[in-house]
Amino acid sequence: MNRVYNFSAGPSMLPLSVLEKAQKELVCYGESGMSVMEMSHRSKMYEEIIFKAEADLRQLMNIPENYKVLFLQGGASMQFAQVPLNLLSAYQTGKADYINSGNFANLAMKEAKRYGDIKEVASSKAQGYSQIPDWDEKKFRADADYFYICMNNTIYGTRFTKLPQTGNVPLVADISSCILSQEYDITKFGIAFAGAQKNVGPAGVTIVIIRDDLLGHALDITPTMLNYQVMAEKDSMYNTPPTYGIYMAGLTFEYLLSQGGVKAMEQRNIEKARILYDFLDESKLFHNPVRKCDRSLMNATFVTGDADKDAAFVKAATAAGFVNLKGHRSVGGMRASIYNAMPEEGIVKLVAFMKQFEADNK
Amino acid sequence: MNRVYNFSAGPSMLPLSVLEKAQKELVCYGESGMSVMEMSHRSKMYEEIIFKAEADLRQLMNIPENYKVLFLQGGASMQFAQVPLNLLSAYQTGKADYINSGNFANLAMKEAKRYGDIKEVASSKAQGYSQIPDWDEKKFRADADYFYICMNNTIYGTRFTKLPQTGNVPLVADISSCILSQEYDITKFGIAFAGAQKNVGPAGVTIVIIRDDLLGHALDITPTMLNYQVMAEKDSMYNTPPTYGIYMAGLTFEYLLSQGGVKAMEQRNIEKARILYDFLDESKLFHNPVRKCDRSLMNATFVTGDADKDAAFVKAATAAGFVNLKGHRSVGGMRASIYNAMPEEGIVKLVAFMKQFEADNK
Repeated sequence: MNRVYNFSAGPSMLPLSVLEKAQKELVCYGESGMSVMEMSHRSKMYEEIIFKAEADLRQLMNIPENYKVLFLQGGASMQFAQVPLNLLSAYQTGKADYINSGNFANLAMKEAKRYGDIKEVASSKAQGYSQIPDWDEKKFRADADYFYICMNNTIYGTRFTKLPQTGNVPLVADISSCILSQEYDITKFGIAFAGAQKNVGPAGVTIVIIRDDLLGHALDITPTMLNYQVMAEKDSMYNTPPTYGIYMAGLTFEYLLSQGGVKAMEQRNIEKARILYDFLDESKLFHNPVRKCDRSLMNATFVTGDADKDAAFVKAATAAGFVNLKGHRSVGGMRASIYNAMPEEGIVKLVAFMKQFEADNK
Repeated sequence: MNRVYNFSAGPSMLPLSVLEKAQKELVCYGESGMSVMEMSHRSKMYEEIIFKAEADLRQLMNIPENYKVLFLQGGASMQFAQVPLNLLSAYQTGKADYINSGNFANLAMKEAKRYGDIKEVASSKAQGYSQIPDWDEKKFRADADYFYICMNNTIYGTRFTKLPQTGNVPLVADISSCILSQEYDITKFGIAFAGAQKNVGPAGVTIVIIRDDLLGHALDITPTMLNYQVMAEKDSMYNTPPTYGIYMAGLTFEYLLSQGGVKAMEQRNIEKARILYDFLDESKLFHNPVRKCDRSLMNATFVTGDADKDAAFVKAATAAGFVNLKGHRSVGGMRASIYNAMPEEGIVKLVAFMKQFEADNK
């Protein structure tokens, strides 16, 4: 069976060489006589794996020493609660500001409302989330405990290309669908977190990068397992971490370093997205509904404007080996998620297929 | 490299045939053209995997229809908070009774104290947890929202062989280190939960089996991700579940069914434990410190009474391919964790090695 071009929004494609390495050592890792899945997380062998994964991620993202890197569980959705539980008492106001740029930002905001005084300072809901909201910094609260954004909005195919200026208020960003896809200056964030299942590895690992002054402020009701400080003090091993997922993430980090790191990925991703968006801008059949300046590098949405035609396209594409192109159920249409592991070749071939489909459906 | 005999308490040995099957299909699952790790959790292909895993587990454990089976994240330690967050308002008293049979029961009890009126109704702390506590049912509170036990105490090598009679109060059991090792009557429990990394699969999956009348009572402060009802309604896919870990668990379930199910495992485990305990009872060097009636089938602890000799034994055993025999740091000595995946041959060879060590160290 040939590998398909998998445009899934997540879980999504992993680099073939990463999968092949994992396959080779699945039953027996090195000279250990066991699978990584069978290793005690307290063993020296496993510590080498997790600490190397962290070191490689620090190198890839240029993470300063005053930031902790945590490997947690529960995905971004768990962070929607974990962030307010840990930060809402940081400066004792219990306030946080949110930009509502889509479904996941909205869910995060709703969840935070259980725990504090939450303000939506900008929203693009009225535009169907087809753009990043325009914001007015005068509406930001200077005494908020944190300020929250979702950097890349997977469902709609939008991304922040500049950051809101929040002054001394720590900026918290969900970078689940853009981590390692382009260079970010981590020092601009108080917390940046990401579920692994897009650019990192299998689902079940959440990466949390947190500035160390934000540790130690958890509300009393915070479960121990959701207390960032506890996890930071225990190097993410307060209890058994998702050992195999972290190992897979480490393989991806090694692969990215071998490919020139995030700078090289960013250049490739810009070119990959350009090929697809250029076609969408030319096409008479397909078009991208997003405000141009806000277009995502990772998720390109497109529609024909005719639901039957959309469905026919998805069906034909699937049969041709371009799978998971159906848009999110909440918006319909199509979406090509083109994370780091999607080769340029996959996009070139998809565009050729779309051109042919367009010619056949005039 | 030959496989070692891995006596780790968890993560621990998995059946070789399970690992080999996972290896074979790691890069490409069936005709899918992708790895299981790359599959959208919303795809039909993945739904088949997770629903079959659930069906097989239901068959293995004879789980009735009025119980939900959830695949969650965070390990047993997350359940220490999740149980009180979901049950402490079930009958509106906010009370729960705990039996303190060891470190993990104690941690669970401490965590629950954040959320309600928690009573320790029995403890074996004074005995160094070398036995299951004797209990007096008159001390149990009839109006408690739940009653909590840890069925098998990994660190000390003890297990409950009978259940406390709690009347109408739902019994909640941490079965992390004994799930699928012997037959349990699930109808005796309100909730039984287990981290996967002992008898099921890789770390990062938590199995929660919950009677459906216990759903829907979560405290307001409960994070959405920790609300059993939300996860039950969404078949564990409120957000992206740990897809690969669940797939691996499913492979183990298939394997167990092919081996005759839990009844067959129980017979094998009784025999495996007998071989080891019989030797420990005869040995002049090694002895098992646990009250005989409470001995675990899964974790057999033993000591020489001399810390230097213990260390020398662990070192020699490791060199001979019997690894991870060091006892938990809190109790010292040795521990052989002999979960389902440990073949009888591993125990026979370990006993032979111990006999030789004893002869050499007279």
